[in-house]
Amino acid sequence: MRKGMRIGVVLSGCGVYDGAEIHESVLTLLEIERLGCESFCLAPDIPQSRVINHLDGSVSGGERNVLEESARIARGEIKNISQAGANDLDGLIFPGGSGAAGNLSDYALKGKDLTVTPEVERLINEMRESRKPMGFICIAPVLAAAVLGEYSPSLTIGNDTATAGVIETLGCRHVEKGVSEAHTDEENLIVSTPAYMLGPGISDISRGIRKLVEEVVRLCG
Amino acid sequence: MRKGMRIGVVLSGCGVYDGAEIHESVLTLLEIERLGCESFCLAPDIPQSRVINHLDGSVSGGERNVLEESARIARGEIKNISQAGANDLDGLIFPGGSGAAGNLSDYALKGKDLTVTPEVERLINEMRESRKPMGFICIAPVLAAAVLGEYSPSLTIGNDTATAGVIETLGCRHVEKGVSEAHTDEENLIVSTPAYMLGPGISDISRGIRKLVEEVVRLCG
Repeated sequence: MRKGMRIGVVLSGCGVYDGAEIHESVLTLLEIERLGCESFCLAPDIPQSRVINHLDGSVSGGERNVLEESARIARGEIKNISQAGANDLDGLIFPGGSGAAGNLSDYALKGKDLTVTPEVERLINEMRESRKPMGFICIAPVLAAAVLGEYSPSLTIGNDTATAGVIETLGCRHVEKGVSEAHTDEENLIVSTPAYMLGPGISDISRGIRKLVEEVVRLCG
Repeated sequence: MRKGMRIGVVLSGCGVYDGAEIHESVLTLLEIERLGCESFCLAPDIPQSRVINHLDGSVSGGERNVLEESARIARGEIKNISQAGANDLDGLIFPGGSGAAGNLSDYALKGKDLTVTPEVERLINEMRESRKPMGFICIAPVLAAAVLGEYSPSLTIGNDTATAGVIETLGCRHVEKGVSEAHTDEENLIVSTPAYMLGPGISDISRGIRKLVEEVVRLCG
């Protein structure tokens, strides 16, 4: 485990139903710092695909910007993902939340025909080309499947059979793991954990996220 | 330490500059669950005093509701504080963030002449009357000072001399503690920790918040 690694964390807004899942994002930042590494928050400067009232699940009026809302989780310490390249990073982690499925991609609308937001796709490809590790939490493995399916990575998605089917349709192998586990595809340098795809609680997901971050940092070495 | 305690967590929005500090809130929920207790999120159903763009610190247009935004941190599992009484709770914790100073009170505008939002003041008084413990994180001890100053509680506020002065003006004793510490006023059943009043990082504040939650749960016993 090497200290001092610089780990990018790609946020997708601020809230489980229309942005980055907040607990998953915060626990990722915590574990990175606990390992003596530095986190580097990134998000695309685009409108959210939707704004959801998290009290009742209804659609809210008004527009919100993914980068501005993500900055809430990052306490203002965040950059537009278009300004970041693999050269700036030793590893890259994607927390989950509906923002991964609706802001970083259109998975929520298109299912297996998803496309990934261009700057996100570019950075994933750059990390792959630079042989740098990536971690995908909760629903975020669909991003890895969409961009890197040709390399047949193995990925977790909890026990959601529909999403597991999409991942396999895209050429990947679905690996069923518990919430306190993380799965490492050593060949592709990809780590994943189900987190709130399984839950149920924050202490449950904290264990799997800790393992995921440890594995990403290990693979930076 | 007793398992199964029910700990209220009063949120004040979602974001350090206009709501509840997200890291402090999430770490509070984590520690409560890690101790085998249950968290019970609460927030007032009122408009935010302001909406801040967390990317650049500017004032944003639009209105946001404290309860709806707090629901993002709570993943929808939250109640209007007006529906909660001391009978529903074994303990109560207030994370910090500008929302404690601007939505749960008007400290940000009024300083030592602050008033506390009525439903928040009511619940603090009920907890006091029921001899149930409370925890105040970061800037939130100003709420305890405003409501309970007549009992002269001892409270942390980091090393911010202006706020420490206000707390003393209100009849309390300021106790200087490090970010990894929590201070317990055994007589008044009040625990506090400086968190992001000192920072600097999430792993630093996580240690003090862990101690604060442990102390609140111990005092529930």
